[in-house]
Amino acid sequence: MSDQRISRFDVPELDDLPDDMRQQILAVQERSGFVPNVFLALARRPAEFRAFFDFHATLMDSDEGLSKAERELIVVATSAVNQCLYCVVAHGAILRIRAKDPLLADQVAVNPAKADLTERQRAIVEFALRVARDSASVTDHDLEDMRSKGFSDDEIWDIGAITALFALSNRYANFAGIRPNDEFYGMGR
Amino acid sequence: MSDQRISRFDVPELDDLPDDMRQQILAVQERSGFVPNVFLALARRPAEFRAFFDFHATLMDSDEGLSKAERELIVVATSAVNQCLYCVVAHGAILRIRAKDPLLADQVAVNPAKADLTERQRAIVEFALRVARDSASVTDHDLEDMRSKGFSDDEIWDIGAITALFALSNRYANFAGIRPNDEFYGMGR
Amino acid sequence: MSDQRISRFDVPELDDLPDDMRQQILAVQERSGFVPNVFLALARRPAEFRAFFDFHATLMDSDEGLSKAERELIVVATSAVNQCLYCVVAHGAILRIRAKDPLLADQVAVNPAKADLTERQRAIVEFALRVARDSASVTDHDLEDMRSKGFSDDEIWDIGAITALFALSNRYANFAGIRPNDEFYGMGR
Amino acid sequence: MSDQRISRFDVPELDDLPDDMRQQILAVQERSGFVPNVFLALARRPAEFRAFFDFHATLMDSDEGLSKAERELIVVATSAVNQCLYCVVAHGAILRIRAKDPLLADQVAVNPAKADLTERQRAIVEFALRVARDSASVTDHDLEDMRSKGFSDDEIWDIGAITALFALSNRYANFAGIRPNDEFYGMGR
Amino acid sequence: MSDQRISRFDVPELDDLPDDMRQQILAVQERSGFVPNVFLALARRPAEFRAFFDFHATLMDSDEGLSKAERELIVVATSAVNQCLYCVVAHGAILRIRAKDPLLADQVAVNPAKADLTERQRAIVEFALRVARDSASVTDHDLEDMRSKGFSDDEIWDIGAITALFALSNRYANFAGIRPNDEFYGMGR
Amino acid sequence: MSDQRISRFDVPELDDLPDDMRQQILAVQERSGFVPNVFLALARRPAEFRAFFDFHATLMDSDEGLSKAERELIVVATSAVNQCLYCVVAHGAILRIRAKDPLLADQVAVNPAKADLTERQRAIVEFALRVARDSASVTDHDLEDMRSKGFSDDEIWDIGAITALFALSNRYANFAGIRPNDEFYGMGR
Repeated sequence: MSDQRISRFDVPELDDLPDDMRQQILAVQERSGFVPNVFLALARRPAEFRAFFDFHATLMDSDEGLSKAERELIVVATSAVNQCLYCVVAHGAILRIRAKDPLLADQVAVNPAKADLTERQRAIVEFALRVARDSASVTDHDLEDMRSKGFSDDEIWDIGAITALFALSNRYANFAGIRPNDEFYGMGR
Repeated sequence: MSDQRISRFDVPELDDLPDDMRQQILAVQERSGFVPNVFLALARRPAEFRAFFDFHATLMDSDEGLSKAERELIVVATSAVNQCLYCVVAHGAILRIRAKDPLLADQVAVNPAKADLTERQRAIVEFALRVARDSASVTDHDLEDMRSKGFSDDEIWDIGAITALFALSNRYANFAGIRPNDEFYGMGR
Repeated sequence: MSDQRISRFDVPELDDLPDDMRQQILAVQERSGFVPNVFLALARRPAEFRAFFDFHATLMDSDEGLSKAERELIVVATSAVNQCLYCVVAHGAILRIRAKDPLLADQVAVNPAKADLTERQRAIVEFALRVARDSASVTDHDLEDMRSKGFSDDEIWDIGAITALFALSNRYANFAGIRPNDEFYGMGR
Repeated sequence: MSDQRISRFDVPELDDLPDDMRQQILAVQERSGFVPNVFLALARRPAEFRAFFDFHATLMDSDEGLSKAERELIVVATSAVNQCLYCVVAHGAILRIRAKDPLLADQVAVNPAKADLTERQRAIVEFALRVARDSASVTDHDLEDMRSKGFSDDEIWDIGAITALFALSNRYANFAGIRPNDEFYGMGR
Repeated sequence: MSDQRISRFDVPELDDLPDDMRQQILAVQERSGFVPNVFLALARRPAEFRAFFDFHATLMDSDEGLSKAERELIVVATSAVNQCLYCVVAHGAILRIRAKDPLLADQVAVNPAKADLTERQRAIVEFALRVARDSASVTDHDLEDMRSKGFSDDEIWDIGAITALFALSNRYANFAGIRPNDEFYGMGR
Repeated sequence: MSDQRISRFDVPELDDLPDDMRQQILAVQERSGFVPNVFLALARRPAEFRAFFDFHATLMDSDEGLSKAERELIVVATSAVNQCLYCVVAHGAILRIRAKDPLLADQVAVNPAKADLTERQRAIVEFALRVARDSASVTDHDLEDMRSKGFSDDEIWDIGAITALFALSNRYANFAGIRPNDEFYGMGR
């Protein structure tokens, strides 16, 4: 049989966690019906847990400029490049729900060039993939190009920042071997 | 709105097809409830249609040596490497059904190293990925290695041959832009 | 001394083959003066043998749209990308003969960018190399581009399909270690 | 003349920043003699600023398990892979100071395989480079391998986490074009 | 028709060359029956011409340690990696002659893993390919490995040095577009 | 402790060298204050030593067309691509001195896209990187493009030739493990 552990590293008990973290986890559980494994896996390191979820909240829970669905689209596209099973499966579920589209997440994860994307979505995904794969090659011209397509500086920053955050998140999930909860696979289909 | 065409090339009407092809397509439709788009897209070229589905039948409809689920596993893993949306989505559905496992296809498509695979499945997938990505580097030692893991020559051949067939199929679907039917995404979940 | 086997897998005796296959092989032998090893290596699997040579006949033995030399040019260029010794050597010989040019095959195999190609040949080779290397990135724009260069949809399909067939053929020859007959190296020089 | 801007995005005035951020920046300035540009560039986004420097403090300002010099070594090695000018130059300076070695940073940035590393340092750098380049391929065996070399689970986590944080940091610095302060280049030589 | 120029840069007249160079070229012409184009293309720069052919003489015209055929084998294998048409075609001819083998050059150029190589030849080619593709990754262990296979330090140096010389030669031929003489293609077959 | 040898191969004594080589080395020592290790490492092979330094003199000691600083810029940029510690460190020092710029060498070594380059310098570096990484893809159009930016044929040749010489030099330094003298790291800062 295959390995069903949440993480390759020890995972603390909920009762042993600091109050703020336990409250946050219980709130997620109430909202989602289950505790996403990333919360348990990162709980091993309270300071990193807090910094990560603060980062996540400021970049993913906003509808200003980029919509929430557009933010999830960036996560799925760039996490697929990094072959991060946790992020593709978990954020694929959230993308299906936020975009009210049962197909988009699988399309973007397998091949963004063949996905049903609007022109705006395509521009977002292509800039995000550049930052994910080869951020060193981004020049002033790339920013000019995005501005000429109608993106504000704050939107461009958000695309870059979300991609950066999931460059981090993908590596955490991959080196720690964080397992996506089975619940995510079928959500929003 | 995005492009919903079956293929980038003209697709013939069912009524204009030779009898054998029309019968074959109607039989699939009866079995599956819909006509998978690859049948319509390839129908443009009857000789290629027949050769492709003959190849497919001999390599995919057998349970000798490799099980049908193992055969689909090879297709999903190698088609993900080639980012073939049609094959990952359509054969992902078939894999879920044949393996009676709603998670395996997504796992293998995103990151085979993190998938819930048995040792035998892992050896199959790793050899298939070598043939998919860099067949030129396969040596006698690789075959010895597979034999030492208990695979027969016919099983090794089947892994290589299925990978080869989908190297072809992935390229057809990708250059012709064949769209997976919406029905596939949710099957077997 | 080095390995001179036809294939890494057992090869059947000509006398043990089904009639249609034996007749086909004898006809090739009469035409070429020898039996190309791919016939013997694939004969191990009659259904795959028949499907492969049906595919080959429909895509390679036609002069409609693409000339026979142009078809061989695609095979040599894409097989070199896949480092398939059998296909580069065997189809290099056929290309020299069909193009009546003793230099072209070696040029295309080593570096298509430096080969003596007409503009039409160069467009064919470049599209074929895209499909060989990264078919997932082909978009509607690439097809428009080929149409604007004067290629019909049937010609574009043929370039893609021949590339796809040899993506299959190259992998078969590479995993099975099919050895090119010595006769091919010097033909057409 | 070349571009001397701190960032491709607008940078706020120190006086316009929230108190906690201004105090933090002034403290850095007092300690270093100048304000590293990353503080000014990220100040545009207070929530991201705070989350980033919290992350940074917990992972970089500790001597438990990994030494501070070992932590900087990870940053320089992985930031070189991502060609992040800001991080290689700024953390190269810090590495020279923390390791009391004027050569190590340049060696690791150009070619870790040729750097003067102890066995322990080499194991750290190699695991970090795996996570930086291809975290998806990390398996249980890689963790066992690190444990067998004497690393604790907390040390292994730290190597992965620091690499992940700078995967984020490198992408921010690269898409935003954050310029390293001239002061960094000569520090610690 | 395609481009038949010797080089993308102007080529001097034989009569305008310094005596030593003209004598050297006439001697080659007498020996080979034609003037290889690399002599004419490099003649544009007498100092580079002399340094290159001095380098070439010391590394390629010796039978000490490595045989002349082994030296040519290195040139063909590494020039194929760099897709240098001039060097693969010209040195392919010389290899056929020196190794008295009409097949080896094409085999090594297309796929060294499938070439008819002795164990010693295979070790030479594999070390050369490492230096050609990724010399930065060569470590003390690689040299130990070669010594343990029976190579002297002078032989190892020669493999590395010949590979280095043709890294130079391949780039000259590629940026200058030096055309291999038609005579080379058929020599030694 | 780490390895401090000049080279992985034996290095001759200065007194055992031919007169011309010993004089050349003593002259360098007088000029620089120390003997750069590449002189000692190559001295093992007098003919290669002489050919290499002749090549070097003709390409690097000229101010015609390309300035000496531009020549060093090519060396640092392309040696960084090849991860050659010796050449990046030694020629980084020379570039700082010749360009009278303490920052440029580190910028170009880490990420040329972010370096403070004039338009002319950027064109030089980009063409050099093409030749370093993928010389096979250089076409007539690339030369036309350089000419249209104001470069003479001799300047274009020099960029290609210097890149080619350091493709050689980087491989020598990498396979032989030539250690840069400690003096280079701090020069010109």
